[in-house]
Amino acid sequence: MKLVANNYGKGRVRVAKVIRDGEWHVYKNYTVQITLEGDVSAAYVAGDNALVLPTDTMKNSTYAIAATHDFSSPEQFGLDLSARFLATAPHLTSAQIEIEEQMWKRMVFDGEVHNHAFMGNSSERRTASIKRTHEGVSIESGIKEMYILKTTGSAFVGFFRDEYTILPEETDRIMATNLTATWCLKDAGDSAVYNQVWEQVRSVLLETFANHDSESVQHTLYEMGQAVFTAVPQVAEIGMEMPNVHNIPYNFSLIGIDSKNEVFVPIDEPYGMISGRLRADDAE
Amino acid sequence: MKLVANNYGKGRVRVAKVIRDGEWHVYKNYTVQITLEGDVSAAYVAGDNALVLPTDTMKNSTYAIAATHDFSSPEQFGLDLSARFLATAPHLTSAQIEIEEQMWKRMVFDGEVHNHAFMGNSSERRTASIKRTHEGVSIESGIKEMYILKTTGSAFVGFFRDEYTILPEETDRIMATNLTATWCLKDAGDSAVYNQVWEQVRSVLLETFANHDSESVQHTLYEMGQAVFTAVPQVAEIGMEMPNVHNIPYNFSLIGIDSKNEVFVPIDEPYGMISGRLRADDAE
Amino acid sequence: MKLVANNYGKGRVRVAKVIRDGEWHVYKNYTVQITLEGDVSAAYVAGDNALVLPTDTMKNSTYAIAATHDFSSPEQFGLDLSARFLATAPHLTSAQIEIEEQMWKRMVFDGEVHNHAFMGNSSERRTASIKRTHEGVSIESGIKEMYILKTTGSAFVGFFRDEYTILPEETDRIMATNLTATWCLKDAGDSAVYNQVWEQVRSVLLETFANHDSESVQHTLYEMGQAVFTAVPQVAEIGMEMPNVHNIPYNFSLIGIDSKNEVFVPIDEPYGMISGRLRADDAE
Amino acid sequence: MKLVANNYGKGRVRVAKVIRDGEWHVYKNYTVQITLEGDVSAAYVAGDNALVLPTDTMKNSTYAIAATHDFSSPEQFGLDLSARFLATAPHLTSAQIEIEEQMWKRMVFDGEVHNHAFMGNSSERRTASIKRTHEGVSIESGIKEMYILKTTGSAFVGFFRDEYTILPEETDRIMATNLTATWCLKDAGDSAVYNQVWEQVRSVLLETFANHDSESVQHTLYEMGQAVFTAVPQVAEIGMEMPNVHNIPYNFSLIGIDSKNEVFVPIDEPYGMISGRLRADDAE
Repeated sequence: MKLVANNYGKGRVRVAKVIRDGEWHVYKNYTVQITLEGDVSAAYVAGDNALVLPTDTMKNSTYAIAATHDFSSPEQFGLDLSARFLATAPHLTSAQIEIEEQMWKRMVFDGEVHNHAFMGNSSERRTASIKRTHEGVSIESGIKEMYILKTTGSAFVGFFRDEYTILPEETDRIMATNLTATWCLKDAGDSAVYNQVWEQVRSVLLETFANHDSESVQHTLYEMGQAVFTAVPQVAEIGMEMPNVHNIPYNFSLIGIDSKNEVFVPIDEPYGMISGRLRADDAE
Repeated sequence: MKLVANNYGKGRVRVAKVIRDGEWHVYKNYTVQITLEGDVSAAYVAGDNALVLPTDTMKNSTYAIAATHDFSSPEQFGLDLSARFLATAPHLTSAQIEIEEQMWKRMVFDGEVHNHAFMGNSSERRTASIKRTHEGVSIESGIKEMYILKTTGSAFVGFFRDEYTILPEETDRIMATNLTATWCLKDAGDSAVYNQVWEQVRSVLLETFANHDSESVQHTLYEMGQAVFTAVPQVAEIGMEMPNVHNIPYNFSLIGIDSKNEVFVPIDEPYGMISGRLRADDAE
Repeated sequence: MKLVANNYGKGRVRVAKVIRDGEWHVYKNYTVQITLEGDVSAAYVAGDNALVLPTDTMKNSTYAIAATHDFSSPEQFGLDLSARFLATAPHLTSAQIEIEEQMWKRMVFDGEVHNHAFMGNSSERRTASIKRTHEGVSIESGIKEMYILKTTGSAFVGFFRDEYTILPEETDRIMATNLTATWCLKDAGDSAVYNQVWEQVRSVLLETFANHDSESVQHTLYEMGQAVFTAVPQVAEIGMEMPNVHNIPYNFSLIGIDSKNEVFVPIDEPYGMISGRLRADDAE
Repeated sequence: MKLVANNYGKGRVRVAKVIRDGEWHVYKNYTVQITLEGDVSAAYVAGDNALVLPTDTMKNSTYAIAATHDFSSPEQFGLDLSARFLATAPHLTSAQIEIEEQMWKRMVFDGEVHNHAFMGNSSERRTASIKRTHEGVSIESGIKEMYILKTTGSAFVGFFRDEYTILPEETDRIMATNLTATWCLKDAGDSAVYNQVWEQVRSVLLETFANHDSESVQHTLYEMGQAVFTAVPQVAEIGMEMPNVHNIPYNFSLIGIDSKNEVFVPIDEPYGMISGRLRADDAE
């Protein structure tokens, strides 16, 4: 038999950093996953660990790089952390870093942001995925678990039908999703670039979702991607997953109440799954 | 043997309502739990269901009351729903309604709030608990899963020690919690009152947490309660649970890096548990 | 204002122990929660921690007691751990220990149990709750998240009806629940007693659930309790929570298929909630 | 810009079936995910849904196929369900079905299995993944969330070291994982074949894990794969993910207790990630 693929690493390494500028504190909180590849087949086949950098060392390295390098964007942190692994263990062929950043937001009182107090209620996370080999590196930025909903401006009609199709056509429905988006840029940047693009892309996605006159989730997804390319020309490619999280109108006819499309049953399962990936014409 | 306690009900009934005022839409989303009590011991002892209102009916009633009654505060909705059960099945002795409201926030673009688009990223929920008997009703309002953190202004020194106490004294630590608070008012109100008090209590809790010079979580909890009584005199009693969610300084001495209290390991387990309940002097 | 209630402690302290008898190993895995009470109001009111045993010490004590005391039942471990706290910090008035034991089962090959290999797939946990004061101690044993289901032998007819009642009478339905049970004994025991009673109660609950001809979840709950008192006379009191986890017949009439009560939609929400607590006639 | 990839479908469709043979009942419970591909770019680009089979229809079709086809293995059910979609909507180019089966086990009393009562406590699920195009079909079987642990027979020494490597060499440690395995067969089968192979593979994986003298998780993974090829020659390829779920020895030196490698801190995060994919020599 043959070992046709293998990798190993460390998952859910959690690291936070407080960056202080006098009384002004920044709090950043990342969950990091590290995956390394290389010819460590001797470990599998013969129990020989001579080329196996322990996963515990990957954890320690995460904190070491956090202490000594730029922590102000997950992209830059992933670049520095992946470089560390290929430098310290050059027999490795690739290092992949996946980062999820918790969104801790500064508290605001009377319109003024607080120096050192934060709220972390958001399910939304900023993501970065860095894959580095000895030849080069690719970077993907993203957003995860962003729940968005609109109460009108969404229809679904004229669809394909078979004998099991009983869905009524809807000209005015609630549309809700739990957005995942990932994108890459035409050119590499630094933390300032990644942070700014992240804010721009997020803002365009939200605004297009809110204002687009939707014929389907697919239709809206496409429009959202198009708007990103227009507003943020650095973006080369963007992928989106937009599950259709249903709010089902309650069937009041069963209990003799006159319904007015006002009361809904929000459900988590089942859900629609819609995804698409778009590439700018001038990207290669 | 004796049946010394019993109750039954329906859990996780999810109901959303869109309240439309022209193009201005409000979206409210509640998860409701209903618990009824009364002498239904014949069901237990003899399998006789004559006095058992089905839990399916409790679910239907939730949607019926949502369609026909005020949905603008969980407190008022719980009052109306509990009244329904004691009216339709007067052999019941109590109806308890627990409501969790998801915090869907209106999207904002260029400083303007959107008519009909919302974000639902927040783990935070507003809660209401209504217990109604034929004699009266009690109401508790609350907040759940509010994650708050400050990077300074928190110490923990001078504590009790035994032979297993190795915790170092800390004069400047990160303080983080996942707040649950519940309170009741001196007098009953309507939706406008419950909504306004909720905003006020929440705001005072946040501001006190942020600015209090803390000697312990207990100390801060007490100060937060005191601030609520001062700012919102309608509140008769407030209880808080403030788990101490730890950010542990990473031990850089192990890997020979000079640490500056900057890099932390956020952990979910174990966690401290601190709670307290305070009553205003002029409440009975 | 007045501090009317307070307590503090440590949650989710996870501790495992390997007990070796030659090549025969036992692996036990507990998640422990500790709650202490006493007059520590100075910490709340004045930020004075002199009487506050740190929650970090509670954690360390859990491992210390695990190393030095009987770990073969959660009841006995909770008794020893609670005693430690009242002894080392006698100003405390009570120590409550909640334990959940993961059910790691020995692997079996060709009918033979393995010396040192285990499976931990089960959601089911054994629980123990110990509350100790300087005057005495109470102990509760239990089972949590035990999913059980029967495909016949369950009916629900003749129930109370109002205008929102549309549930059809069912003479043959699937009955499924996620059982929580807690019980206390007439007299204190040791690990051997607690372990044996736990197995006996669990077995009687399962067998009665499986074989009882059910008119409702309430009816079955009562019968299960009665069977426990008959088979395990040491039990003084037993409480059960038996959520009704629904398997809804799919409505095939909508898609023109002739249904035979064979295909179901299992749902997690909403669910029925049924609970009851029974006391033996000869218990006080 | 260009739409470079897209698909859509329905997730978390839950379906259960009771198969009755007199008083002998079988209860099967699947969670199904459907993903369809085809040129539905008009929906994205122009909001034209003419070729979009609604996800609601996918859900209905799941129940329809469950009612009318073999439900005794997830593989066969996935084959029939995927065929339905390509037949009813031939403009689609592929239909992928992912199935997770909950492991409901028959209750046993006094050594006898019960006719119609089941336990569903297990986190473990059987999985099947079927991808069908108009040209052919591929099938993958699997196991998910199988928690296994051994208290001895596992070492980790002689590993690669850098300046951040502080992990001590361990000659006798606890080894625990949460196994995911997926495999495909050399030739297609029927439900009887898939069911039998599943039991065989599972049994070999467990026995090898238990008895292998492990130099690392990688080493054990390889040995487990090798054992599968030997015992179940139908298997062409097998992939495994074996996260290293740590039980960390508690550091008793901190509290002055003499430790004997008996007491551990089980942690969920961080965890090691080890994976590998093996192919039989005679598979293509």
